[in-house]
Amino acid sequence: MSDLTKQMIYDIYVRLLHLNEQKANTSLQQFFKEAAEEDVAEIPKNMTSIHVIDCIGQHEPINNAGIARKMNLSKANVTKISTKLIKEEFINSYQLTDNKKEVYFKLTRKGRRIFDLHEKLHKKKELAFYQFLDSFSQEEQKAVLKFLEQLTSTLEAEQTDGTPDKPVK
Amino acid sequence: MSDLTKQMIYDIYVRLLHLNEQKANTSLQQFFKEAAEEDVAEIPKNMTSIHVIDCIGQHEPINNAGIARKMNLSKANVTKISTKLIKEEFINSYQLTDNKKEVYFKLTRKGRRIFDLHEKLHKKKELAFYQFLDSFSQEEQKAVLKFLEQLTSTLEAEQTDGTPDKPVK
Repeated sequence: MSDLTKQMIYDIYVRLLHLNEQKANTSLQQFFKEAAEEDVAEIPKNMTSIHVIDCIGQHEPINNAGIARKMNLSKANVTKISTKLIKEEFINSYQLTDNKKEVYFKLTRKGRRIFDLHEKLHKKKELAFYQFLDSFSQEEQKAVLKFLEQLTSTLEAEQTDGTPDKPVK
Repeated sequence: MSDLTKQMIYDIYVRLLHLNEQKANTSLQQFFKEAAEEDVAEIPKNMTSIHVIDCIGQHEPINNAGIARKMNLSKANVTKISTKLIKEEFINSYQLTDNKKEVYFKLTRKGRRIFDLHEKLHKKKELAFYQFLDSFSQEEQKAVLKFLEQLTSTLEAEQTDGTPDKPVK
């Protein structure tokens, strides 16, 4: 096994992760571009708010704790974002039980337009990704799938017990 | 080309990116664990501060704008973090020119210990990654390298001109 290939894979993998962390900006610009093309004038100002709308659209009615868990955000952060989204009329809040504290969220029509726009952009990215994969043979695709599956299970194991050097079984 | 394989690759790739975005918590716990093993008592409270120490250690003397550019952070954020790191005596600030506004940072001995710890943890992760790659044949590694290289250049192209569906040349 050539160490150089392994070093190149490691370096490019770290680079890919950094690019992905920085892509929040690009995603927002792409979203604004898509919205302009569809004459959607009012848009939340950051990707996290757009992803909260997406999460509500996927799981409504859903409460603060449910959103926090699904998006790995703090409840305080979800409260801050949802309060703003209510004020901007992208979502409404409801009480489903007598418990006044238990508030659930649903999208407004305005929020649904953002949800649909986000879905459309995701679909576009998914299709672009499939087109990208067409340049790989079936054998190459199998190797990539094996790599991603094993790496994901390693990261999941790490995040449950926090040991970075758990050998891959 | 089986669409199922492509769908599986896409889903697991998105999952991997989400796991990576959530790993900030795990990395911090791993860092605290490593620090405890090395009797390093005082540690910055979040990964971003640790990464600012790493950036200064790699490039000192370096100024606010240099750190902001390398880490894709806002200058205001770098000011906030560096002010705290100075107060906690992890870094010192210097004037290299007569221009009072032009302040440069260097690590203190205390900061250097955090830097070394971070390097050690990274080395451990890198070795764990190489061990993980040993379970792949040379052919499989070549396919993985091709996938990562092409995906990275697609993301870089996207981030320079912001179009998600640029076909891969």
